[in-house]
Amino acid sequence: MTYLLNSPDNFADEAVRGLVASHPELLVEVPGGVARSTQTPEGQPALVIGGGSGHYPAFAGWVGPGMGHGAPCGNIFSSPSASEVYSVVRNAENGGGVILGFGNYAGDVLHFGLAAEKLRHEGIDVRIVTVSDDIASNSPENHRDRRGVAGDLPVFKIAGAAIEAGADLDEAERVAWKANDATRSFGLAFEGCTLPGADEPLFHVEKGRMGEGLGIHGEPGVRDSPLGSASEVADLLFDAVTAEEPVRGENGYEGRVAVILNGLGTVKYEELFVVYARIAERLEEKGFTAVRPEVGEFVTSLDMAGLSLTFVFLDEELETLWTAPVETPAYRRGAMPAANRIPRADIWNAGEAEIPQSSEDSRECARAITAVLETFQRVCAESEAELGRLDAVAGDGDHGQGMAFGSRGAAQAAAKAVERNAGARTTLLLAGQAWADAAGGTSGALWGAALTSAGGVFTDTDGATDEVIVDAVCAGIDAVLRLGGAQPGDKTMVDAAVPFRAALREAFDMDAGAAITTAAPAAREAADKTADIAARLGRARVLGEKSVGTPDPGALSFALLMAALGEHLTR
Amino acid sequence: MTYLLNSPDNFADEAVRGLVASHPELLVEVPGGVARSTQTPEGQPALVIGGGSGHYPAFAGWVGPGMGHGAPCGNIFSSPSASEVYSVVRNAENGGGVILGFGNYAGDVLHFGLAAEKLRHEGIDVRIVTVSDDIASNSPENHRDRRGVAGDLPVFKIAGAAIEAGADLDEAERVAWKANDATRSFGLAFEGCTLPGADEPLFHVEKGRMGEGLGIHGEPGVRDSPLGSASEVADLLFDAVTAEEPVRGENGYEGRVAVILNGLGTVKYEELFVVYARIAERLEEKGFTAVRPEVGEFVTSLDMAGLSLTFVFLDEELETLWTAPVETPAYRRGAMPAANRIPRADIWNAGEAEIPQSSEDSRECARAITAVLETFQRVCAESEAELGRLDAVAGDGDHGQGMAFGSRGAAQAAAKAVERNAGARTTLLLAGQAWADAAGGTSGALWGAALTSAGGVFTDTDGATDEVIVDAVCAGIDAVLRLGGAQPGDKTMVDAAVPFRAALREAFDMDAGAAITTAAPAAREAADKTADIAARLGRARVLGEKSVGTPDPGALSFALLMAALGEHLTR
Repeated sequence: MTYLLNSPDNFADEAVRGLVASHPELLVEVPGGVARSTQTPEGQPALVIGGGSGHYPAFAGWVGPGMGHGAPCGNIFSSPSASEVYSVVRNAENGGGVILGFGNYAGDVLHFGLAAEKLRHEGIDVRIVTVSDDIASNSPENHRDRRGVAGDLPVFKIAGAAIEAGADLDEAERVAWKANDATRSFGLAFEGCTLPGADEPLFHVEKGRMGEGLGIHGEPGVRDSPLGSASEVADLLFDAVTAEEPVRGENGYEGRVAVILNGLGTVKYEELFVVYARIAERLEEKGFTAVRPEVGEFVTSLDMAGLSLTFVFLDEELETLWTAPVETPAYRRGAMPAANRIPRADIWNAGEAEIPQSSEDSRECARAITAVLETFQRVCAESEAELGRLDAVAGDGDHGQGMAFGSRGAAQAAAKAVERNAGARTTLLLAGQAWADAAGGTSGALWGAALTSAGGVFTDTDGATDEVIVDAVCAGIDAVLRLGGAQPGDKTMVDAAVPFRAALREAFDMDAGAAITTAAPAAREAADKTADIAARLGRARVLGEKSVGTPDPGALSFALLMAALGEHLTR
Repeated sequence: MTYLLNSPDNFADEAVRGLVASHPELLVEVPGGVARSTQTPEGQPALVIGGGSGHYPAFAGWVGPGMGHGAPCGNIFSSPSASEVYSVVRNAENGGGVILGFGNYAGDVLHFGLAAEKLRHEGIDVRIVTVSDDIASNSPENHRDRRGVAGDLPVFKIAGAAIEAGADLDEAERVAWKANDATRSFGLAFEGCTLPGADEPLFHVEKGRMGEGLGIHGEPGVRDSPLGSASEVADLLFDAVTAEEPVRGENGYEGRVAVILNGLGTVKYEELFVVYARIAERLEEKGFTAVRPEVGEFVTSLDMAGLSLTFVFLDEELETLWTAPVETPAYRRGAMPAANRIPRADIWNAGEAEIPQSSEDSRECARAITAVLETFQRVCAESEAELGRLDAVAGDGDHGQGMAFGSRGAAQAAAKAVERNAGARTTLLLAGQAWADAAGGTSGALWGAALTSAGGVFTDTDGATDEVIVDAVCAGIDAVLRLGGAQPGDKTMVDAAVPFRAALREAFDMDAGAAITTAAPAAREAADKTADIAARLGRARVLGEKSVGTPDPGALSFALLMAALGEHLTR
């Protein structure tokens, strides 16, 4: 969905105006697009790159030292017109001739071609370089007839670096074609993009499927297939792009590659990095060396959901140009002096905790504690979705996940401690730390502290009495009160924990399980009643009023676990 | 929607692994998060920044020279645990103490605070700086109690630059707090984000409305309001953030501001720039100077639709640090030597076309041509959505918009030419160029050439006969055949134009309107029949088979305009 516009008709023009306004040190608006706001040396070839709008950073975001000299800007997904191209060239060219660089699409070929004719008539030396990296769009033998996708980035980066390094027009054209001939991309789409002012995306991809061989103008893929895991997607992209690897050891190519994992708009960074984690494994497995890989958004398609993988098979010349400094609004490289970059020597690691001596009685108790934590893990997993839903009303929706992660981490740590012959105290201390580590968040810290404090009531030498169990539960609750700083009525876990503790103390008569079971409904009742009040603390504090009508998820999860604990102990 | 994952539980960890794999020159994975892969000078304070995952580039994307020394990485939207913070500090600290920088959220305060306690016990000097830029979350008097949103970027950038410049721990802490106290943000949300593995977003915003005062952990806004135009949104953000501007001329503040317009995930770059275009106007109107503004994605919230505006009210010290070089995976500044940056002298502009002398007869004809083009504009506007829909089946969906833009541009240019007393020939030549300029794309180039060629049949001195009109229409069609290079059967405009031309020639008997009306159904029939064939040319070429069953939108728009032309002329 495109949310922000004034009028669909002026959208592309206003975007160019905003871009230039945000980077006056690099860009100036000229009729038809943008040019560098600073002079280039006389006789330096100009690299004029362009295409439709809707692909930012491509193309206007790449104008600046080390890359483009100007960019004609068409409407959304639509080639700039011949007069726009002509006008930008007139503003970018400074006696050294011009390379017109654009993706190989019929409209661009037509308009840039018409502009080139007019410029040549006027005595300007014009070379045309069409980027054609998309392997889905034609056969390997017809590489230069393919369409251009994210290969725009390395081809224009490399051509711009050659010019910055002093290449003349012949040389810059040669390098640009060489870069294009060494570049391969393949992309996947999961959902189409919506043009500004439109109500519906240009196309839909069925849920759980993907379009292979996407285009960057909102074209759907060339075929549909089921959407796999991130690693399967990575493998598909990797296998497709490396299928056209040139022979290593020939023409200066030795397996060194520029790698670009490009998000089209709404496949976000974390997802791209999960995919890249697998690509990095495949690179290593196949003996590639990735040279300054880039993972991010480089050639987008408005809010299209998709990604593409690009490889440039590098020789020494291409590698030098790929890694050269560049400064444009959206692409910057080589910022800091490389001096003083000594690799670090070692990595600190906490190592494995030491396990103190323990008695069989205490180990028996540790096994019972582990069983309780496994029950907690089960209950948290069962209620994860519901707790998340409640938390999303006025919070950040992570409570269900936090409880699930934390209880699982605690149960696993306890089981591991038991394996290593830990007693009850050590088992609970390690489980508490593991809960906090696995869960993060406020509730993770509080539950971690609760387990740790409860562990302090046990020893590694004695078995547990019912009194110790009840004391441990109360010590855990005390830790939550102390550390969390919440009061009853703040709409937190404390609202359930305080009445539960009172009920537990009252009900306790030498049977911990029975007392906890008796007290648990007090926790649940109090948790349910938090629906009547507004949150005042924690992440919900700014959204307090929204929380009225919904019980506090932290109070509820506490009540659920105490009920489960009682049931477990009386079984 | 989060499309790419292997398992929701390992999502955040795998993302960190992929990030480190893509930037080994800057980052190394350490237990609990990431640290710089290169050594820092002994005694240099370490800036350890962190928080939950799901906010990339924040926080691990900002580790490198000039910014962070390490970043503990929590689960999605969930604070890292105290032991993760502790471990990252142990790997980042090198004898100069540490600043723990994080957004002011309860979970982070708790976990970073616990880690700080442990580190202090071990003799490490720890300072805590909580970012609190979100004006929606508390009152101005309680600025430091607000939560942190995109202000993380400038606060950590400035603190990191101070350390890089040689600040000791006291000094770095002072500067970090100063930056935070000078930073204000306000954000809006249009749709919630979806946690990895979840089916539904954390919250929905009703269509046409927006949540004001969004959080970056998927919290909805603090209140709802109707979503206005991009400029209205810009004004709302600008007014909110500047309401807390300090007094100019006091404390070294003179109206110079770092401005960050931050996209949360799926509000894309072009939209942000449209908003920034208005913000730039407001900055100028209010006498602000924007210092190296940034428009892009800096602190995201997975695929949340929203944006925020951040201002840092700068004095000289903060400005120097804000603009200092930095090199991290996601934030790089100061790439190229500033030498040789002379502002350009002038901007080339085509200027206004010259209008040759004309006769009243030809001017009469030019007015008639303008009326035809206005009819075309109306028909194209009416069929814009339908043509776009047809084009999206196997193309890029821009045909409707291209025809609407082109015909409007042509009609406007013709009207302007008529005002300037142009004859028929000049009017059509200018209209043709305007069509190509306004439309871009293949169809824009072809329609522009068609009008231009048709114009060549007219003169500026004579009136038009019916024969001239028919010849002009045929000359336009000839231009399309010549320039477009398509053959009948390629599923393009040519499939309608060729049978239309034949029918027109056959039907013509001294009444152009009647002949065109008679021939128009041949164009429509042929256009409809293109549904039976697969596209072979243009952007549809790689998706040819998908186009079967849908008529070619270019053939259809040609048929619609010829029918309208005939009707217009016989009226």
